[in-house]
Amino acid sequence: MYRTHTCGELRLSDAGKDVILAGWVQRTRDLGGMTFIDLRDRYGITQLVFDMNTNAELCEKARKIGREFVVQVKGKVRERSSKNLKIPTGDIEIIAEEIDVLSSSELPPFTIENETDGGEELRMKFRYLDLRRPCLRENIILRHRMAQEVRRYFDSHGFLEIETPMLIKSTPEGARDFIVPSRLHPGTFYALPQSPQTFKQLLMVAGFDKYFQIVRCFRDEDLRADRQPEFTQIDCEMAFVEQDDILKTFEGLAKHLFREIKGIVLEDDFPRITWDEAMSLYGTDKPDIRFDMKITEITMLVKGKGFTVFDNAGYAGAIVAEGCSEYSRKQIDELVEFVRRPQIGASGIFTVKYNTDGTIKSSVDKYYSTEELAKWVRAVNAMPGSLILIIAGEREKSLSALSELRLKLAGDMGLRKAETFSPLWVVDFPLFEWDDETQRFYARHHPFTSPKPEDIDLMETDPAKVRANAYDLVINGIEIGGGSIRIHDSSVQKLMFKVLGFTEEEASSQFGFLINAFRYGAPPHGGIAFGFDRWVALFAGEDSIREVIAFPKNNAGRDIMIDTPSPVSKTQLSELMIDIRKP
Amino acid sequence: MYRTHTCGELRLSDAGKDVILAGWVQRTRDLGGMTFIDLRDRYGITQLVFDMNTNAELCEKARKIGREFVVQVKGKVRERSSKNLKIPTGDIEIIAEEIDVLSSSELPPFTIENETDGGEELRMKFRYLDLRRPCLRENIILRHRMAQEVRRYFDSHGFLEIETPMLIKSTPEGARDFIVPSRLHPGTFYALPQSPQTFKQLLMVAGFDKYFQIVRCFRDEDLRADRQPEFTQIDCEMAFVEQDDILKTFEGLAKHLFREIKGIVLEDDFPRITWDEAMSLYGTDKPDIRFDMKITEITMLVKGKGFTVFDNAGYAGAIVAEGCSEYSRKQIDELVEFVRRPQIGASGIFTVKYNTDGTIKSSVDKYYSTEELAKWVRAVNAMPGSLILIIAGEREKSLSALSELRLKLAGDMGLRKAETFSPLWVVDFPLFEWDDETQRFYARHHPFTSPKPEDIDLMETDPAKVRANAYDLVINGIEIGGGSIRIHDSSVQKLMFKVLGFTEEEASSQFGFLINAFRYGAPPHGGIAFGFDRWVALFAGEDSIREVIAFPKNNAGRDIMIDTPSPVSKTQLSELMIDIRKP
Repeated sequence: MYRTHTCGELRLSDAGKDVILAGWVQRTRDLGGMTFIDLRDRYGITQLVFDMNTNAELCEKARKIGREFVVQVKGKVRERSSKNLKIPTGDIEIIAEEIDVLSSSELPPFTIENETDGGEELRMKFRYLDLRRPCLRENIILRHRMAQEVRRYFDSHGFLEIETPMLIKSTPEGARDFIVPSRLHPGTFYALPQSPQTFKQLLMVAGFDKYFQIVRCFRDEDLRADRQPEFTQIDCEMAFVEQDDILKTFEGLAKHLFREIKGIVLEDDFPRITWDEAMSLYGTDKPDIRFDMKITEITMLVKGKGFTVFDNAGYAGAIVAEGCSEYSRKQIDELVEFVRRPQIGASGIFTVKYNTDGTIKSSVDKYYSTEELAKWVRAVNAMPGSLILIIAGEREKSLSALSELRLKLAGDMGLRKAETFSPLWVVDFPLFEWDDETQRFYARHHPFTSPKPEDIDLMETDPAKVRANAYDLVINGIEIGGGSIRIHDSSVQKLMFKVLGFTEEEASSQFGFLINAFRYGAPPHGGIAFGFDRWVALFAGEDSIREVIAFPKNNAGRDIMIDTPSPVSKTQLSELMIDIRKP
Repeated sequence: MYRTHTCGELRLSDAGKDVILAGWVQRTRDLGGMTFIDLRDRYGITQLVFDMNTNAELCEKARKIGREFVVQVKGKVRERSSKNLKIPTGDIEIIAEEIDVLSSSELPPFTIENETDGGEELRMKFRYLDLRRPCLRENIILRHRMAQEVRRYFDSHGFLEIETPMLIKSTPEGARDFIVPSRLHPGTFYALPQSPQTFKQLLMVAGFDKYFQIVRCFRDEDLRADRQPEFTQIDCEMAFVEQDDILKTFEGLAKHLFREIKGIVLEDDFPRITWDEAMSLYGTDKPDIRFDMKITEITMLVKGKGFTVFDNAGYAGAIVAEGCSEYSRKQIDELVEFVRRPQIGASGIFTVKYNTDGTIKSSVDKYYSTEELAKWVRAVNAMPGSLILIIAGEREKSLSALSELRLKLAGDMGLRKAETFSPLWVVDFPLFEWDDETQRFYARHHPFTSPKPEDIDLMETDPAKVRANAYDLVINGIEIGGGSIRIHDSSVQKLMFKVLGFTEEEASSQFGFLINAFRYGAPPHGGIAFGFDRWVALFAGEDSIREVIAFPKNNAGRDIMIDTPSPVSKTQLSELMIDIRKP
């Protein structure tokens, strides 16, 4: 037995006990007569004391022990004379009687503390040391707790966790697959799943009416910040349900997690808005509603007064920054700068200051009378002391710029509070998305998403107008999950493939097994998938999902700790009957 | 809302209630005046009644509904006149008032019943229908329950479930890896993990002293019965523990599962025997100890009496089949036949019948006196009425044949009872295994398994003799799990690689990250991994793990339902910069 207690366990009531602890040396302090070691493990830190006067030999031994050594210590618990109120074990210390080095350590390449001197690259390379830092350790523990609570919720609601295969079939629809050459069937490949979508639908056909899985998924995407080639999904599906049943069930999951993990009781139903509303009120399909600051369209109000920018604009929208009427020229210039960045691409911002004394001052005073500006103020519902910010131009681009500006402003104004959580359902997404490059419609979600029954007639005449029975859960502007009611009728599924430009042969070769399955009694069904990494990151208060994954890849898709992807042997390639193409 | 109740829920106390059910039609019976439908879902079966007299139109509609149609029915619960005692809902039936076909079904290709007329190939192709059969459905539910209980046990014992990567690095040691070409780094590959071994060890170095994961693993093996290219492991690791701590912790897991899942309370500690003992007493490292029938070596006893077969044999061993002294010539010939099969390869069996009247009759009477045979009878501790079976020859081969014979006999004698469970720890496995073909030692478990400290000196002088701190959990002759105390000392790890014939460069290029990690304070640690599929199969009473996997591959590694592995597009290969070699 290597230890009787952990380093986070001993309290004043344990004083006098003989104990054995084991852990890592966080730091040592040699005060001449006394040497102190802070011993750390997953559970906490306990102070060890070595006294030159009572045991010089042991004290000498302790002095030679460096940071991150693994040691085992035997000793007696005693009350500290100067207590450390910051840690739960701060009332006691261990008078060491024996110490053994179980494993020594070279000097770590960065400090094992929350505020570390290690850069990201170095920390990724020595991830096993990075994970010793309390902040990362707590994230991993949080992730564990969330996973267990997810399962507890589902299990208690009659869901079955069913494992689906990882070696599946490549389908050209959607993002790029990772593929796996087959040695036993040379020239053919498995693909790693982007999601268990078709399998969970087959499970519904098989009669398992409530399914979930916390499951690894894979996407061979081009590099984007904070994407991982492998990521984890909470994948769910239910049969014999309508959209409302699904939203209620998974709203229940979210409330359960908020309560059990964050101690936050969300009593009210989550608000629901349609995709159309989300786009026109927030300029995005994942609005952050921790704060209001909705967009008001004022296109008609601003036109026809001779200001060509507005006259030529397809759209003009405004947001109101309450209490910001005193913003300086410099502050406003910064905002203009912000929306002009290429990733946003707006041409500028027009402002109206509705001062606390009731006066109105605008950057377009030249074109609009005070009376006209007063109409704008009323239209956007501004209070005195507000700054009104207007962006005009092409509708979608302006809305998207307003959305970014809204977030930026709210951030500056301290309205995006880390410990406030505002969940929201966005419903009625469009079924299709037009792609200019390939000149065809794509399924916005996937080809199994059902159209709203009342829109089915539009599928062949005006696909862009068809709304889907699809929904997203958005929390604080982050898309946590999304799903849909699926098609369970072969004829609608056929129509869907037709609109997507699949020939019958293509549909059958790629999804024949699902189409076939629907011929043997498919129940109405639907589901949702949550980005588990993202949800954990949200609860952890981390911006990057890398901070909640034990061994993440870097932004180039590499694991620099184990140094992969990497070359394989010629024998392996021969066995697989594949060759690497010369560049 | 598609239903108010499930098909397994209604009881006599619900009589009179208006209900809505939805499910699949198990069967219909048209009795002229009345039509009955058995409606099935995951939860059970409920009888629906349609009466020609009261509602002819509805009854006509019901008559047209076929097997496996998905229907929704509204009606009233009423007590049955002729109750069905075999099902929990057998006291009631539903007087149908409305029925809607939610989805029709073609005639299924096999009957959806436990005793089905579908062959394995057909059932695999239509797996979603196969999964509707109650036996398979119950296996999947059992698997869910076991997974939840595994997690409950670990969570309550302070273990953290930590996800490890699936896209890792290929290492030539061990079985063949599946590899995944990288598009972003052409010419390089990820590999799918055969186990998270090195990552769980890194987690110990990182300070997470109790880790577990229910995790998919991959092995590109040649075809063997009941192997799957992807399989699920319960993977575990602990730090600051000795072998005994590990065995106790995981014995606790096994007892927990037996209690919660099978309702079996195992009070006693699981027996432990060494690998040496297992091999000499049972001829195998995974003995079935539901019954005794140990092997007794009688080599010295049988030699020197002029019977050349025994005189030339390196080994002679015997097992005792109690109560089988009356076995006929035919029965014994069958056993001889059995051990002569090429996969066993023994040359024959010698028998001694110790009859109930105390007389002894042997197939080698010619060479041995009754007195001599009586010595054998005493040596093997046989009771009157026993059949003693002897196999002689090369030691290992004879032991292995005796092991097979022992299992075969016990099966014939009804000693391998399905609902008896006899767990056993086999400990002190050899560290190395000699491979004749490559003329080198391999790590029997993996290169991180620690030798017993007292055997370290033998590592360079007599590797075959070195015992490992390695252990297997065996239940009813099935290896359920195995693990070891790991090396946490760089110098021992270096020695290990040396014995395995790795140059320092090879060791460093393949396992450098782990060797490096050990330089920064590695705690003593060890772990175990359980074959989850196999454990579920054991509890389900299934011989094949395919019966407890929702979507298994066939024995050729193919998923014949989705038809994979399959060709991929030229574009995909071009993006990956790989070519398929012409055969």
